[in-house]
Amino acid sequence: MNRGFVLKGDICDSRAGGALNTVQDGYVVCVDGISQGVFHELPEAFTHLPLIDCSHHMIVPGLVDLHTHAPQYAYRALGMDLELLDWLNTYTFPEETRYGDLAYALAQYERIAQDLRRGPNTRCVLFGTVHLPATELLMELMEKTGLITLVGKVNMDRNAPDTLAEKDAQQSLSNTRLWLEHCKGRFTRTGPILSPRFIPSCSDQLMEGLAELQEQEGLPLQSHLSENPKECSWVGELCPASGSYTQAYARFGMIAPGRRTVMAHCVWCKPEEIQLLKESGTFVAHCPQSNANLASGIAPLRTYLREGLSVGLGSDIAGGAHSSIFRAMSDAIQFSKLRWRLTDDSLAPLTVAEAFYLGTRGGGAFFGKVGSFEEGYEMDALVIDDSDLTTPCVRSLEDRLSRIIYLSDERQILHKFVRGERLF
Amino acid sequence: MNRGFVLKGDICDSRAGGALNTVQDGYVVCVDGISQGVFHELPEAFTHLPLIDCSHHMIVPGLVDLHTHAPQYAYRALGMDLELLDWLNTYTFPEETRYGDLAYALAQYERIAQDLRRGPNTRCVLFGTVHLPATELLMELMEKTGLITLVGKVNMDRNAPDTLAEKDAQQSLSNTRLWLEHCKGRFTRTGPILSPRFIPSCSDQLMEGLAELQEQEGLPLQSHLSENPKECSWVGELCPASGSYTQAYARFGMIAPGRRTVMAHCVWCKPEEIQLLKESGTFVAHCPQSNANLASGIAPLRTYLREGLSVGLGSDIAGGAHSSIFRAMSDAIQFSKLRWRLTDDSLAPLTVAEAFYLGTRGGGAFFGKVGSFEEGYEMDALVIDDSDLTTPCVRSLEDRLSRIIYLSDERQILHKFVRGERLF
Repeated sequence: MNRGFVLKGDICDSRAGGALNTVQDGYVVCVDGISQGVFHELPEAFTHLPLIDCSHHMIVPGLVDLHTHAPQYAYRALGMDLELLDWLNTYTFPEETRYGDLAYALAQYERIAQDLRRGPNTRCVLFGTVHLPATELLMELMEKTGLITLVGKVNMDRNAPDTLAEKDAQQSLSNTRLWLEHCKGRFTRTGPILSPRFIPSCSDQLMEGLAELQEQEGLPLQSHLSENPKECSWVGELCPASGSYTQAYARFGMIAPGRRTVMAHCVWCKPEEIQLLKESGTFVAHCPQSNANLASGIAPLRTYLREGLSVGLGSDIAGGAHSSIFRAMSDAIQFSKLRWRLTDDSLAPLTVAEAFYLGTRGGGAFFGKVGSFEEGYEMDALVIDDSDLTTPCVRSLEDRLSRIIYLSDERQILHKFVRGERLF
Repeated sequence: MNRGFVLKGDICDSRAGGALNTVQDGYVVCVDGISQGVFHELPEAFTHLPLIDCSHHMIVPGLVDLHTHAPQYAYRALGMDLELLDWLNTYTFPEETRYGDLAYALAQYERIAQDLRRGPNTRCVLFGTVHLPATELLMELMEKTGLITLVGKVNMDRNAPDTLAEKDAQQSLSNTRLWLEHCKGRFTRTGPILSPRFIPSCSDQLMEGLAELQEQEGLPLQSHLSENPKECSWVGELCPASGSYTQAYARFGMIAPGRRTVMAHCVWCKPEEIQLLKESGTFVAHCPQSNANLASGIAPLRTYLREGLSVGLGSDIAGGAHSSIFRAMSDAIQFSKLRWRLTDDSLAPLTVAEAFYLGTRGGGAFFGKVGSFEEGYEMDALVIDDSDLTTPCVRSLEDRLSRIIYLSDERQILHKFVRGERLF
């Protein structure tokens, strides 16, 4: 890696609290993978660094996908006539079973790896399947993409076909420990994340074991929370003593201060659950398109932002069909408007600046200082040639950002940097 | 034009009532621009025709955009933080004023012409501006695209800036007559459509004159109906005697049996209005993305289909940001699911087959026998190379269609035919 470099161009990022920061014809400086800040004039101290002149192009932080499923990439946009639980049984579980076959896994995982390498996301939190070899293969492929990813071997020991579910909690936990053992020292950009699928798939014993592992090893953990009304009712039946879906996780210690946990969806959380998410610092992965495709609903993002929850965006493939977090941004804005119109007009729709914040700095915080060019942040950057999106109506960098969010695709991404390394 | 040809490939179209018709490795035959039908085996009578072998590619009817605004193309994805009426005053009217400058109009209209030529739509109903020269220029550019279009010089004589509105009804009507005169015999693929902007923009006298022109000349007519709650209230104030927004048009005779009229949006129509639309055979242009972007709401498409209304899809640029009617199809499905979840679970979401029907045959009916390969239909066709969308999970032509709707873009369109003419 070069010790450092300077990018020159039209710069746009989010600051603390979500404010949009724009600098036309400015400089962002990277040393040892870390941003030294954004400048109108290049400080003397950095003039010795090589300058990559991207004048007239837009420079934005890489995007962060807080929630997706790699083994579901092959059936994006299929079977979208079912709600969550039927969709899982009809499509997801049979398909995930096929990842016991490593050749099949390789062929399919190569597709998502290629997509992620070329697209605008630089960080990604992924579910794999229950299978150790396929999950390790996925990690190897993710490592090669150059993105920084967290990949999960799924845990599930109940309410799934025998061909897919692990035999019992003990087997699931020993598989998980073996997998963690295999991961040690193996990757520089890829790490393991504990991945109990969701409450209905995991026995109490399994959850207890995973919560213990999370604490002992200081590992991140991902799961699903309050996505679909029928799922929520089922969790209520499975855990009658918990009082809420969030509490059903919290009782094991997974949703608690000090834990690094991200929960996908959170569409139907009640006020006391929102408080619990807030107090515990749990991340919410908002997956708007998935929540529309599976007819789950629209999460109250305005509430989450007002309350100061940690929120980012997720593509949730294959509930969502599109891997780009730019699409998740425009979906989030559109659906927040429909929610405002149809459900609760006290919750103002999301703005472009807010959606951009969610898809960069908001989700980036799960990875540390990520998702901004503020001094000290890890240098993930996209250089976007938006010249073919420019018209006389595009008058500001914020206008250009809005056009990029709604209208760009991977063809416009000229360069992509992850923690200071240039992928292309 | 060749007298005829045969396309061979994997064929998918909609039949009467909306049923999806799929024929793998079949033939669709075109003679003099008209489909002779879809066949599993090529009939002897057509074996002399040149065969275009598109084996393994998908062949679907061209898509129909029932509602869009050409002069708004340059500000797609901008200013989406406002509702309809404020958005019109802040962005639309100032921008449309610039189309008094023909050089400006040319530069901008060339963009949408290029997009439409390359994209999946083969028919389009467009609003221009009030300006005669710019509207005729738009028609010339549309003619050159090879698409079949209806283009409207806008009528508006009130509630708009003086720089844009026409002086009075008389001036607006004489401009319109002059424009119609200029159009006569000038185009083969492009025709005029009367285009009163909406009730708030048009005096009663103007509406009376336009309705008379519509009847005398047998012209199609387009306008906007019941898009946004504030707009609906305003129409109620402007036309207290009408009883409903639909009636505010119907009293002039524009919404009546025998008239060829298309109304964009129809989000908030009451039951008696729906009956009026049904009995009059008025077309509804459903514009889902625009209705989300401007926070208007979600039209009850299931009701319209059940009632047997004539319905198609519209991109409604710049309320909508995307010109492709494939995007309008996936938006329509997603939003119908959100409406089902949030507003009325007695109205089942749209299926892929239904959305495909709306975007082809449903809207196509406004142009005559258009939007299907059934015998006697005008031959608009797309040949789509979806090989890079194929995975082991894609098992049927319906699966392939679903992937194309959600995931394809113009890069996958190999060939495009409009009324039997090959554009590329």
